[in-house]
Amino acid sequence: MEKMKTTDLEQLRHEATSNVPLSGSGNSASNASGGNSPNGDFVPKSMSLSAQSKIESIREWSVNTFKTTKQFISERFGKGSRTVDLEMEASIESLRDTQKKYANILRLARAMASHFSNVVHTQRALGESFSELAQKSPELQEEFVYNCETQRTLVKNGEILLGALNFFISSVNTLCHKTMEDSLLTVRQYESARLEYDAYRVDFETVQSGPREAATQARLQDSQKKFADHKQKFERLRGDVQIKLKFLEENKVKVMHKQLLLFHNAISAYFSGNATALEATLKQFNIQLKRPNAEKPSWIES
Amino acid sequence: MEKMKTTDLEQLRHEATSNVPLSGSGNSASNASGGNSPNGDFVPKSMSLSAQSKIESIREWSVNTFKTTKQFISERFGKGSRTVDLEMEASIESLRDTQKKYANILRLARAMASHFSNVVHTQRALGESFSELAQKSPELQEEFVYNCETQRTLVKNGEILLGALNFFISSVNTLCHKTMEDSLLTVRQYESARLEYDAYRVDFETVQSGPREAATQARLQDSQKKFADHKQKFERLRGDVQIKLKFLEENKVKVMHKQLLLFHNAISAYFSGNATALEATLKQFNIQLKRPNAEKPSWIES
Repeated sequence: MEKMKTTDLEQLRHEATSNVPLSGSGNSASNASGGNSPNGDFVPKSMSLSAQSKIESIREWSVNTFKTTKQFISERFGKGSRTVDLEMEASIESLRDTQKKYANILRLARAMASHFSNVVHTQRALGESFSELAQKSPELQEEFVYNCETQRTLVKNGEILLGALNFFISSVNTLCHKTMEDSLLTVRQYESARLEYDAYRVDFETVQSGPREAATQARLQDSQKKFADHKQKFERLRGDVQIKLKFLEENKVKVMHKQLLLFHNAISAYFSGNATALEATLKQFNIQLKRPNAEKPSWIES
Repeated sequence: MEKMKTTDLEQLRHEATSNVPLSGSGNSASNASGGNSPNGDFVPKSMSLSAQSKIESIREWSVNTFKTTKQFISERFGKGSRTVDLEMEASIESLRDTQKKYANILRLARAMASHFSNVVHTQRALGESFSELAQKSPELQEEFVYNCETQRTLVKNGEILLGALNFFISSVNTLCHKTMEDSLLTVRQYESARLEYDAYRVDFETVQSGPREAATQARLQDSQKKFADHKQKFERLRGDVQIKLKFLEENKVKVMHKQLLLFHNAISAYFSGNATALEATLKQFNIQLKRPNAEKPSWIES
């Protein structure tokens, strides 16, 4: 309910501010059909059809904005009547909450990958230092050698784990900021359509409950037609949201089931020193590691 | 050879600039034995013995500084003769190199502890997030639960590993910046004494090779005495350095053997997920962990 603009509204507003020739600013466009009077004043001969229709659309947009703003304010102050779908609102609320929580997991996973990458970096440097000291310290050679080997093994496995972490991050990022965001865009369009629908419903009810005279008959018909149009749009978007939420829920469970399994298996394998299981996990999830010194994986290795 | 000042020289210089009353700046000290003449001029009656001996020591220090600086410059330009103990110089060079390399290991171990601490911190936050999501996501409860448990186990063991890393850092720091530094201080004193010894040796040789007259006999004796004094000091410090280097070598091997074993065993145990071995390693090396939420370990736990 926070953001009221729909993309349709945005588009109309854009046309209103950039394309419509208003008097005084549309000289060059009007010059073809208009002319200069003897005393130098500009007198338009006739208005083009396109300009007329644009002015009409601005008028309509203004009325629409006025009605929806009035409805929005009435709802805010608890006066207006509001169409409520409790089940759908709960689903939407739950989706927004899930997105927030997954974004937090994503933030932590990114921090983890970054800190862990620093650890691997330090392990590589430590491995090199131990190796150098092993050569120069005969009396402590054995100790430096086994420490060097441990650090090098950790670096090798650490890079594989980083590959798994980055795959997890990329997948959760797509789910959180592309798939969920797409559904939330439809939700915002639906929420805007609901507000418009309620605005025209209230308008129609007001006209309907007024005196029935010949003069108001046209207005009643117009109001009824607009109410029907907005109801149709509202119901179409309501259907869209229902379908998207359903598919999103299925998709979310599928993606997260896979990613949480990968995250757990890769981390468990790495932190139990099981290099075979770690590599098997990456193969299982089809994760290709970026080799630092190769553009493409060699065909011999694959 | 870069730093020429010994602590003895430093002390003499300090006394020269702060304690010795020079004429014109020692008024208040001299007022007791001196007085004002009728025309207002300050006339010192007599010089105190202490002031005399201090002036003598400044004179001696100046001569000493002049001789050693001359010797230092001669050596730098490859002209003067220089007493060389190849074996000891190699040992000193090796100690300086080892200190530099251990300081590098220390720097890397500190970086490792810092990055690893960040990893543990993120693991704790991830564990909490997974736990929260496990409660709110019935359809993914199992996946969130096992991830939460893995992160919590890693945090627990990570804190133990951090204890081992910090013990390693503290021990190597003591070896590198206290034990080795103490030996290097003696080395610097020895190097300074060697320069002085060579300066007085050259001085004595010059006087000795000069004409033997009654007038120069006193100078020869004085030069011989000073040469003998500096020779004694040089040989005493040479012995000190030999003993310190020997003990340092033994101490270094003992400390590093223990620390490198600890470092390896703790890291191997942690990264193979062997919590029992990790705790056994800490017990073996008598490492007490700081408990974050307790001032003292409870007597029940011990």
